[in-house]
Amino acid sequence: MKSHRKELWFDIPSRRDYINITREVEREILASGIKEGLCLVNAMHITASVYINDAESGLLKDYDAWLERLAPHAPTSQYLHNHTGEDNGDAHLKRQVMGREVVVAITNGQMDFGPWEQIYYAEFDGRRRKRVLVKIIGE
Amino acid sequence: MKSHRKELWFDIPSRRDYINITREVEREILASGIKEGLCLVNAMHITASVYINDAESGLLKDYDAWLERLAPHAPTSQYLHNHTGEDNGDAHLKRQVMGREVVVAITNGQMDFGPWEQIYYAEFDGRRRKRVLVKIIGE
Amino acid sequence: MKSHRKELWFDIPSRRDYINITREVEREILASGIKEGLCLVNAMHITASVYINDAESGLLKDYDAWLERLAPHAPTSQYLHNHTGEDNGDAHLKRQVMGREVVVAITNGQMDFGPWEQIYYAEFDGRRRKRVLVKIIGE
Repeated sequence: MKSHRKELWFDIPSRRDYINITREVEREILASGIKEGLCLVNAMHITASVYINDAESGLLKDYDAWLERLAPHAPTSQYLHNHTGEDNGDAHLKRQVMGREVVVAITNGQMDFGPWEQIYYAEFDGRRRKRVLVKIIGE
Repeated sequence: MKSHRKELWFDIPSRRDYINITREVEREILASGIKEGLCLVNAMHITASVYINDAESGLLKDYDAWLERLAPHAPTSQYLHNHTGEDNGDAHLKRQVMGREVVVAITNGQMDFGPWEQIYYAEFDGRRRKRVLVKIIGE
Repeated sequence: MKSHRKELWFDIPSRRDYINITREVEREILASGIKEGLCLVNAMHITASVYINDAESGLLKDYDAWLERLAPHAPTSQYLHNHTGEDNGDAHLKRQVMGREVVVAITNGQMDFGPWEQIYYAEFDGRRRKRVLVKIIGE
């Protein structure tokens, strides 16, 4: 069994954003030399998500508006978590809707994807350096 | 390390439906000959989910009504994604609530499941051929 | 390839609670002797979740209040599932928001975690014995 590990770093200038990281993950699968296996891609921070969906700019705005309806940022006082001095209570909730991680099959040395699958990093509390972990195991 | 791969195909005649695929995944685990490992089951399309929950017909209707409240299909114009000519903006949101994938442990050649766990394919934009990937690794 | 399996048992005295199980999972990773691999942690019951987020007591209350807004327990008659004699329809919905499972990378024999990642068991229908599965594969 082989394994491969890489951290992807982000420093998103806004509070929230949605970044396509498919190419970065593909590069690590190639670098791993693994032909058959599984690739875990997870946010290492708890106010961000990694998810798989469409690379369509309207949809990214739909996600953002919908998450704001399900877990609004303001008023920040509505979250007990923010009484600790934080203002990111909403980000911890939004991240649960979109998820922490994806697991991707590797077949013949490539991501085993349907026609529209793209891997996204979703930032819900940006303006600082944060990481995504890519961990690959297989042969 | 061994690996095994299978695509399951669906052509759901309605827009939304919930299909129990536990037996189909069990069959692939048996076919793989893998005794200890992990089994990834993921929707290969971005308007469908694979999830694990109860095989109870009332619950399936509860899920459907609840997802319609969280992300209603109509009016379709409420989603920017639909301005591209699609009418499935809601399906991309519903899929995030229910998830893309499950990872199932394999122990002694079988799914390592609690008493009520069943694997479902949830279709949110049917009436065309779509796929689920089953990828198994282990020994 | 090596594998390791452990069930963690819970008997939560209230309907809902959020329990940090990071130390228990760490102990199994150590017991497995696996240095590089993947660790699956999943609820074996369909009215409970395993998720990764912050160990902060205000946030746990925020999650609980938010899940009650998204999928209220009462009136129990609002869920068709409860017409079977159950009163846990809401728990099946809450569990989908928070997820069934997490997959954790193992690097150098340890959980490969960001600074604030903690593994939680979320119970949505307690007052009986329920289980979490820890399954580890790697080398």
